[in-house]
Amino acid sequence: MKLEKLVGDRFKERPADCVIDSHALMLRGGYMKYVANGIFSSYLPLRRITRKIEQIIREEMDRIDGQEVLFPVVLPASLWQESGRYESVGSELMRLSDRNGTPLVLGMTHEEAAVQLVREYAQSYNKYPFMIYQIQTKFRDEARPRGGLIRVREFTMKDAYSFHTSQADLEAYYDRCFHAYERIFARSGVPEVVSVASDSGMMGGSLSHEFMLLTPVGEDSIAICRDCGYRANMEAAAAIVSNLRDEISQPLELVHTPGIHTIEDICAFLESPKEKSCKAVVYQQNGDNRYVVLFIRGDLDVNETKLTNFLGCEIRPVVIDAECGLHVGYIGPYDLNGDFTILFDQSLKGANNLSCGGNREEYHYTGLDMERDFSGAQYHDFAKIGENGICPACGKPSITIARGIEVGNIFQLGDKYTRSMQMLYLDQNGETHPPVMGCYGIGVGRLAASVCEAHHDAYGPIWPISIAPWQVHLCAVRADDPLVKAYADQLYEQLQIRGIEVIYDDRDVSAGVMFSDADLLGVPVRAIVSPRNLKQNCCEIVTRDKTICETAPAGEAAGQIAALVEKLLDSYGGK
Amino acid sequence: MKLEKLVGDRFKERPADCVIDSHALMLRGGYMKYVANGIFSSYLPLRRITRKIEQIIREEMDRIDGQEVLFPVVLPASLWQESGRYESVGSELMRLSDRNGTPLVLGMTHEEAAVQLVREYAQSYNKYPFMIYQIQTKFRDEARPRGGLIRVREFTMKDAYSFHTSQADLEAYYDRCFHAYERIFARSGVPEVVSVASDSGMMGGSLSHEFMLLTPVGEDSIAICRDCGYRANMEAAAAIVSNLRDEISQPLELVHTPGIHTIEDICAFLESPKEKSCKAVVYQQNGDNRYVVLFIRGDLDVNETKLTNFLGCEIRPVVIDAECGLHVGYIGPYDLNGDFTILFDQSLKGANNLSCGGNREEYHYTGLDMERDFSGAQYHDFAKIGENGICPACGKPSITIARGIEVGNIFQLGDKYTRSMQMLYLDQNGETHPPVMGCYGIGVGRLAASVCEAHHDAYGPIWPISIAPWQVHLCAVRADDPLVKAYADQLYEQLQIRGIEVIYDDRDVSAGVMFSDADLLGVPVRAIVSPRNLKQNCCEIVTRDKTICETAPAGEAAGQIAALVEKLLDSYGGK
Repeated sequence: MKLEKLVGDRFKERPADCVIDSHALMLRGGYMKYVANGIFSSYLPLRRITRKIEQIIREEMDRIDGQEVLFPVVLPASLWQESGRYESVGSELMRLSDRNGTPLVLGMTHEEAAVQLVREYAQSYNKYPFMIYQIQTKFRDEARPRGGLIRVREFTMKDAYSFHTSQADLEAYYDRCFHAYERIFARSGVPEVVSVASDSGMMGGSLSHEFMLLTPVGEDSIAICRDCGYRANMEAAAAIVSNLRDEISQPLELVHTPGIHTIEDICAFLESPKEKSCKAVVYQQNGDNRYVVLFIRGDLDVNETKLTNFLGCEIRPVVIDAECGLHVGYIGPYDLNGDFTILFDQSLKGANNLSCGGNREEYHYTGLDMERDFSGAQYHDFAKIGENGICPACGKPSITIARGIEVGNIFQLGDKYTRSMQMLYLDQNGETHPPVMGCYGIGVGRLAASVCEAHHDAYGPIWPISIAPWQVHLCAVRADDPLVKAYADQLYEQLQIRGIEVIYDDRDVSAGVMFSDADLLGVPVRAIVSPRNLKQNCCEIVTRDKTICETAPAGEAAGQIAALVEKLLDSYGGK
Repeated sequence: MKLEKLVGDRFKERPADCVIDSHALMLRGGYMKYVANGIFSSYLPLRRITRKIEQIIREEMDRIDGQEVLFPVVLPASLWQESGRYESVGSELMRLSDRNGTPLVLGMTHEEAAVQLVREYAQSYNKYPFMIYQIQTKFRDEARPRGGLIRVREFTMKDAYSFHTSQADLEAYYDRCFHAYERIFARSGVPEVVSVASDSGMMGGSLSHEFMLLTPVGEDSIAICRDCGYRANMEAAAAIVSNLRDEISQPLELVHTPGIHTIEDICAFLESPKEKSCKAVVYQQNGDNRYVVLFIRGDLDVNETKLTNFLGCEIRPVVIDAECGLHVGYIGPYDLNGDFTILFDQSLKGANNLSCGGNREEYHYTGLDMERDFSGAQYHDFAKIGENGICPACGKPSITIARGIEVGNIFQLGDKYTRSMQMLYLDQNGETHPPVMGCYGIGVGRLAASVCEAHHDAYGPIWPISIAPWQVHLCAVRADDPLVKAYADQLYEQLQIRGIEVIYDDRDVSAGVMFSDADLLGVPVRAIVSPRNLKQNCCEIVTRDKTICETAPAGEAAGQIAALVEKLLDSYGGK
């Protein structure tokens, strides 16, 4: 099509509220427009990109025997009540009611809808395994949408659900899907996407992986082992600490510590390292406002997602008031009275000679011995893994923390949904069981933005040809020159006849404007027709990533461009 | 793919709540599943059908220079407040709020979103004309969903919006779109869809057309002229009445009419025809509950949509109570006191010697003369056009009333939205104007259901090959026979190599079960491999519509089937 007719504005200025480059470039290039917080409309270039991504996903899902279905965006609340998520999921689930007052929700994920679709069908073992998927709009009422398409409220997602009669069968299919995901990201132009072990969060279930594009602007943190290649997101990475126990335990002693509130202060005062202190971190549960007091070694931080998952409900940090019985700056596990949930991080297990709050103003204890003073205590992993932490896989202190954008995830769900929603099948012995499920998601828009984030320069995105809005950007520089116009028109037609997707710029604008627009559209192959080139009877062919810059004799340009497009398409394993 | 693996149940019994055949067949054939009132999930066969329809629509929209975009499903209420529709549209518009209390709506149509997307872009005349479209999920909280996919609450729709600098340009584009619609319906296998002039309803604007599949089970009524071919929906068809005025007007006279309440009663009592009576029909406005008293000739009925459009708000029939000042059965225009909206249908214009209610219990007037007694009255068209009514185009009494399903519509919107939302462009003289718009819709699921309604038999749908879920249904009858299985497997592979979409049934079931399943899937070409056929070294090829029934030598079956598929595809104007 002609660029002149392309709806959408392109502009130079980086919008002030854009923190990441892909967000800025996709606004500057006329890819999308802000409609409301976390809600965007797409213009043609982005729609063409997302349709190509959708098609790649579809082909790879079909290849692993997926069946495309379509679930509703608007679901009856009763379905989510069956699974228990209507209550357990927080305000990111949009709840609404219809004209008759029937409660509804906007689908943010479709496990319930998937079970509803197949539970009458799949009542016998011989129907298994199967996988169904959809590519559909979802809505999640995020508290803080950000980063353009990286974290939005409305998004298009491919979500797939597989059903199995055994964990082994699920695992085998999970593995097939894992490889399908690798192919999807490679074909979409981001083979650098890596898988990381992840925490299952609100989805329930056991094993899961996230697929991450590593980038400093990512909002997720990932623990990576420099030695063995272990990768996990921060929630899934066990924080391993070697708990040093002194040979001799000092007695518990109350010490007057006026004006001392922080771990730093008390350690300086006592001239002991932070590892020898027991830190209190206090939260409040969102539902019932109950206080949660978590004790952890003074040198470590709490991973709140680990805590949330342990509690099974959302939490918030609290401002402690006088009435609750907690003394800010002086909270310790010994002699702590009140109706609190008290938890211990495993970093405290077996530790002794610790300092901790005295549970009264201006006093601390020293000589706390967890074994002696809390013999029955339970310990769990609530700590954040840190830079140079111990790798849970190889045991070496080689963990480094990277940041990434999650572009996909796969979960082994077990029977969480089938059991709660009473989906059962009859096995070969005539016994009934709930099947086990897997689920597999990819955010289409987020993947598009991630590709842009991974492949751009200061002037615009550098789209891989497999998902580029067009394959060739034809520039007629000085289209007011009749020779230029005639040759470019002819080349445009020849390329179209060859089935190549061309965006054709024959506007009467300067080469500068033309090229900066082309940079913003990021089309991989650019063909330049100009009076200078024509004088030499040739056409210039350059790639957006500047790796190829060649000229073709005017009469052979169409063929040479077509061959280049073909070569580039092949390099992405395309069709 | 193998039929054995196809998720979804097929069954014989017609579900009790299905009024129309397409609804019953699409449930019986495993095309879709009920989720909630007017909300369905689609299984693979329906998803394949809708994707093919979407692709046909996309190609035809692109052919008339459309640019595919994507608007949000969830829109800020503020956009609909700008256009005024947040207030004017009734409870079919789903209103909701997010976690911060911001009011939102679910998009049921996207004029506002379209204007929002382009109003900064299209500020100069030289950007015009352009058309943008999307294929996206919509939600409309229908009071009475029915007929399966015919009237649902959640649906996939193609909606297109064109922008122009003149009415003439809009009209020229409207005409192009009209022809694109004809191609879409022809390519989808329902060339019998007709266009009818329609009323613009809540969309605003002037000229509009609906595209109707005529069928006795349709929920829309259409006035068609047997003589000149005029077609309009009931709301758009002017009811033309010849108002007969007697030469001599009788004086107005109050008559005691005890126990007489209906038009039939009073006409019998007075021995005068219904045409000589003035009937009162009373409604209440939904917003402010104001009474609307509409007078119409006794032999005619009110078209409530015409009345709604005139009033600009929704109405309901009322049960009249004593306090409102209206006397049931005795309401007439003369001497009617009270705070009512009083309207006259044009059938009363100039009429005389009418009977009407006396506005007191048990009394009627005779000798009412509209000219004499209501000299300043305004008359409007509120009447339903009826069988053998006068054609507004040719004037002959040749109107017949048909029923149809609306599968698409096109509207000339004028500047209703651009003006209210302050979209302006600068013309060549430096003056600003709001552009004029057209909008163009097609319901994808409803079109699929309409094709099924138009093309089915007692055993299942007969899908046109252009939108059929698969092109060939391969039946291996007695797949337990190794020869049958081996030959069918090979044919399956050969057909797939030729790029043909095959559903392969190699289940160990009877031919009866196999064929009834095939009938329900409605795939246009069926290839049957059986021991009997193989004995004659051939394969049977039949079409679902029974027009073709041939045999192919076993070695040539793949080629012959491919040629038939090609021929059938061509007959629908292929890609």
